[in-house]
Amino acid sequence: MGSLSEDAVDLAQGLIRCKSVTPEEGGALDYLQGKLEAAGFTCHRLPFEAAGTPTVDNLYARIGTGRPHLCFAGHTDVVPPGDDDAWTHPPFAGDIDQGLLYGRGAADMKGGVAAFAAAAFDYLTFARGEPAGSISLLITGDEEGPAVNGTEKVLKWMEAHDEVLDHAIVGEPTNATQLGETIKIGRRGSLNGKVTVKGVQGHVAYPALANNPIRGLIAVLSSLYEEPLDHGNAHFAPSNLEVTTIDVRNPATNVIPAKAEALFNIRFNDDHTPDSLQSWAREKAFMALEGSGLEAIFDYEPANPVFVTEPGTLSTLLSEAISDVTGLTPELSTAGGTSDARFIKDYCPVVEFGLTTETMHQVDERVSLSDLEKLAVIYRRFLDLYFNGGTAS
Amino acid sequence: MGSLSEDAVDLAQGLIRCKSVTPEEGGALDYLQGKLEAAGFTCHRLPFEAAGTPTVDNLYARIGTGRPHLCFAGHTDVVPPGDDDAWTHPPFAGDIDQGLLYGRGAADMKGGVAAFAAAAFDYLTFARGEPAGSISLLITGDEEGPAVNGTEKVLKWMEAHDEVLDHAIVGEPTNATQLGETIKIGRRGSLNGKVTVKGVQGHVAYPALANNPIRGLIAVLSSLYEEPLDHGNAHFAPSNLEVTTIDVRNPATNVIPAKAEALFNIRFNDDHTPDSLQSWAREKAFMALEGSGLEAIFDYEPANPVFVTEPGTLSTLLSEAISDVTGLTPELSTAGGTSDARFIKDYCPVVEFGLTTETMHQVDERVSLSDLEKLAVIYRRFLDLYFNGGTAS
Ligand SMILES: [Zn+2]
Ligand SMILES: [Zn+2]
Repeated sequence: MGSLSEDAVDLAQGLIRCKSVTPEEGGALDYLQGKLEAAGFTCHRLPFEAAGTPTVDNLYARIGTGRPHLCFAGHTDVVPPGDDDAWTHPPFAGDIDQGLLYGRGAADMKGGVAAFAAAAFDYLTFARGEPAGSISLLITGDEEGPAVNGTEKVLKWMEAHDEVLDHAIVGEPTNATQLGETIKIGRRGSLNGKVTVKGVQGHVAYPALANNPIRGLIAVLSSLYEEPLDHGNAHFAPSNLEVTTIDVRNPATNVIPAKAEALFNIRFNDDHTPDSLQSWAREKAFMALEGSGLEAIFDYEPANPVFVTEPGTLSTLLSEAISDVTGLTPELSTAGGTSDARFIKDYCPVVEFGLTTETMHQVDERVSLSDLEKLAVIYRRFLDLYFNGGTAS
Repeated sequence: MGSLSEDAVDLAQGLIRCKSVTPEEGGALDYLQGKLEAAGFTCHRLPFEAAGTPTVDNLYARIGTGRPHLCFAGHTDVVPPGDDDAWTHPPFAGDIDQGLLYGRGAADMKGGVAAFAAAAFDYLTFARGEPAGSISLLITGDEEGPAVNGTEKVLKWMEAHDEVLDHAIVGEPTNATQLGETIKIGRRGSLNGKVTVKGVQGHVAYPALANNPIRGLIAVLSSLYEEPLDHGNAHFAPSNLEVTTIDVRNPATNVIPAKAEALFNIRFNDDHTPDSLQSWAREKAFMALEGSGLEAIFDYEPANPVFVTEPGTLSTLLSEAISDVTGLTPELSTAGGTSDARFIKDYCPVVEFGLTTETMHQVDERVSLSDLEKLAVIYRRFLDLYFNGGTAS
């Protein structure tokens, strides 16, 4: 076995070369499973299906039978590369150029998976194949897709098979610019809503015979934007509402339309619940439309819940590992978009730490070999602290 | 020659049976020209064309050479009937059922053209073919279309041929429900604008890295709606702004879009000019976006001007004729959508008076024979008052 960094780079390259655009497995899980089995992991392939979504393959791999049981969660599926020609290095070649590894998934998150696998292999070498507890990897192929046949179903399968977790680390990119800046310990909730205002269609020259729903919609949206929902709290940034689109689709410049709709998203902290937000919006709209003869109708998608893993063992040890390797003290953040941590938090404490977010989902997604190496060393140091109190290296 | 009402109904039926959906002449101008020539009118057919628009035929007919010269302006083109099967009587059959004449154009405005022609024929019978001045008809086939190859170009042709007008009546439907309610003496102007706010695209979870143009657009539109532009004046209703559409077309519910656009229309009275309105909107938007880092960009179509024919001979005599026939005192209004009066007002005083607006542009467009007869009698009485001081009957 080579050095930690060589392993991480090799593994990341191997994964990037598998064309695993969601929902395609693309050989990525096969490749990883081969490496894990060689290191002594027991592997389960868990394809799931549901009506209206593509069937997706997943991998659950474990070594050891004892407690504590640490699970690393991640995904090998990637978003499409877009126009291949826009890339300076082909998106699935895994080219290394001037200390940077290029490819779709380099940061999000084949690099993170590779770093953890390399760390685990090195730790297992030290532990002669027997960790002081259990290490598992929960790797889905459905993180960038509908996320219906992925982590959530693997966790249910695990529960049904008495696979009990003590702690989990999700290896998604968490650092805005510098490796070691940010651990994520939770996430604001996310609520997608649609607001519809129905009016009375008519000619712009006869406004008294019409009732313009756009005027009402503007009043409603203004009132939703009027005051901040809160000012944030100990673990969370302020909740925030953004209108993402308004589409009236009225082709006639002399006609007042019959209906106007807007979509909005609320990222909310634990000062709120989806129910409390819906009441708030309903009341705001009611006040905004009072006397207008117009009414606002709200529809919502199921919300992603707000959650936080209160600072404890997991974040303390991970912070220590990060500080040891990078000299930085990571911020414990709840910012950003959703991840599969939203499913895992129902089973055990979970935090997230991975590479930098700068190039994820973009053309020329890439990771520096130095970051990849450092991340592997951080994970390795964490395994040491977690299982052996810092003596296992 | 039959009675006034028989003539008006016959003529209206004859016109309705010509399928003259803009830009098709459909035989309507031919039919009318035949009747006018038989009554002694000199007719000119004036087809005009312009790049990007269909060629359209028009008719200018005059009898007499003296002054005053009264022109009746109208159109024989009609809007499409839509689904023929939705009509209880075929749209181009000219069926009469229970005292109602059905057909596309019955109200807008083949009925009005027929009523005036019938009135003119009756007046000419009385005047032995020699009016105390001149009577002309300016009938376009391009009122419901782009209005590029119609009245505006006929008026220029007339000017070039020394056809000088003293007064004009446009025979568009003007009465909301009851014949005799409303003469139109002018019109509010109309200005179509587009406002675009450019922002910074980003993920809804990272609003600090984005700048939502929809938030800015809502602020701008709110400020445009905030206060009325004015409170109306002697001849005009208050000016009014309506947002007619907002179309952001952002398909991603987790993305703050880069740009947001809205279209709006301002109907304005003579307290404003297109320039003053554009300055007003620019300033309102500037204030609304102050400190937001966003900017609003306005684009405008050429405005339809505001105009008014101050009450005088024309409206006085027409009101008198209406009162004599209906017992009603018509309101002198400047409400409603544009008509070709906007072109004629540059040449002579112009007012508008015709049938009721209730069924125009709708399925089962129709006119009561009683209204058709009354309108012919009103026009006849007006010709009498205009040319002979009320003695010519
Ligand atoms: Zn990811
Ligand atoms: Zn018309």
